[in-house]
Amino acid sequence: MSDISPILEFLPCPTPETWIDEARKPENLAVILVDHANNELKAAQSAMAIMSRYRTGKFGRGNGQCDEQKDGPQLRIEDQLSLLNKMSRLAREELRHYEQVLAIMARRDIPYVHLGAGRYAGQLTAAIRRFEPFRLVDTLVMGAFIEARSCERFAALSPWLDDELHKFYLSLLKSESRHFRDYLALAETINGASIADRVAVFGEIEQDAIESSDPVFRFHSGAPDFPSDHS
Amino acid sequence: MSDISPILEFLPCPTPETWIDEARKPENLAVILVDHANNELKAAQSAMAIMSRYRTGKFGRGNGQCDEQKDGPQLRIEDQLSLLNKMSRLAREELRHYEQVLAIMARRDIPYVHLGAGRYAGQLTAAIRRFEPFRLVDTLVMGAFIEARSCERFAALSPWLDDELHKFYLSLLKSESRHFRDYLALAETINGASIADRVAVFGEIEQDAIESSDPVFRFHSGAPDFPSDHS
Repeated sequence: MSDISPILEFLPCPTPETWIDEARKPENLAVILVDHANNELKAAQSAMAIMSRYRTGKFGRGNGQCDEQKDGPQLRIEDQLSLLNKMSRLAREELRHYEQVLAIMARRDIPYVHLGAGRYAGQLTAAIRRFEPFRLVDTLVMGAFIEARSCERFAALSPWLDDELHKFYLSLLKSESRHFRDYLALAETINGASIADRVAVFGEIEQDAIESSDPVFRFHSGAPDFPSDHS
Repeated sequence: MSDISPILEFLPCPTPETWIDEARKPENLAVILVDHANNELKAAQSAMAIMSRYRTGKFGRGNGQCDEQKDGPQLRIEDQLSLLNKMSRLAREELRHYEQVLAIMARRDIPYVHLGAGRYAGQLTAAIRRFEPFRLVDTLVMGAFIEARSCERFAALSPWLDDELHKFYLSLLKSESRHFRDYLALAETINGASIADRVAVFGEIEQDAIESSDPVFRFHSGAPDFPSDHS
């Protein structure tokens, strides 16, 4: 098993026991797996959105489609190439995991039903600053939190799952923890200075999303607190 | 070298000699490579947009986010899984090619400059029907044309390129021709009937995009016809 202590140090809090208790229930396995598949796809899409937006290394007005950015601020060439390459490799790994989750669902006859997103990513996204290069730095810091929390939850949940899922979730730890480090290193390099202040800002939001009551159960949801007609 | 005769039979016309003459010019190599990188990324994004839109197998009102589709038409479970798996594998391969193009550009000091899209994909997209399941069928038929044309152009251009690019472009033929077959087979299966009529519709548009005069030079552009101050 990978050493996830850097991830536990980075995250503001561990997953509440009450979330683990909920996630262990056999009737929640389908939600865990469908949400997991959705998350792998979203993680790949987010990485590719970064690749698309910053492909020329220039900080434009958002969509990379405007020619007037020619003399604007831009990434150093080595940072640009590192960003594009790391995001592309990350997206490929997330897609591979997506295929693995699909295969597990198919073997268990778990249908890929519609499942709306939880609040987690939306709460973090709201803290992204809207001007460059800080928009990119914050997007990368957010990526580090999402990967770190996924990693922590895979580790926390795996002992309670059947053998196949136990092994699968442990196998994911290694790449998720590498993704966490990649996001964090890119954020720091591109920021050109410590990102401790941004990690603190996102950490506070993340802790609230994880520890406060959450009426919706998802892979990244908060402390279970369901209306009585639900649970 | 792969046998690309099925691709040449499928496409409505070969690439005009004048395009190949233009593409061979050393001063156009940067445009070819940057546009190639953009196209690989876009191909991966298009596949993932299909995965996202049709993940539950239901044909909704577009974004897969509305719960009222529960009893609407939907893909057969085997078609849904085949679609999601094939698109995910295709996206991973396109991302791998993207990384290979980036590496070639870096070795040659070719900067990843902004390059607007040509007319090709837009002309094809305009023919996609807006109602399901035909929207999906047409999207897949369009994917087959784009992959087939890419394959044909890699083959047509490779003899005129230096050794590294020659080998690289030939190495892409195999996967691009598999992508072409995957798109076409999925379109036919999901349509549940011959797609010959749609292939004819898109083929006519594709032939026009490839053979008619085009003032912009790109990997998928038409017959070069530049204003005198450009060429």
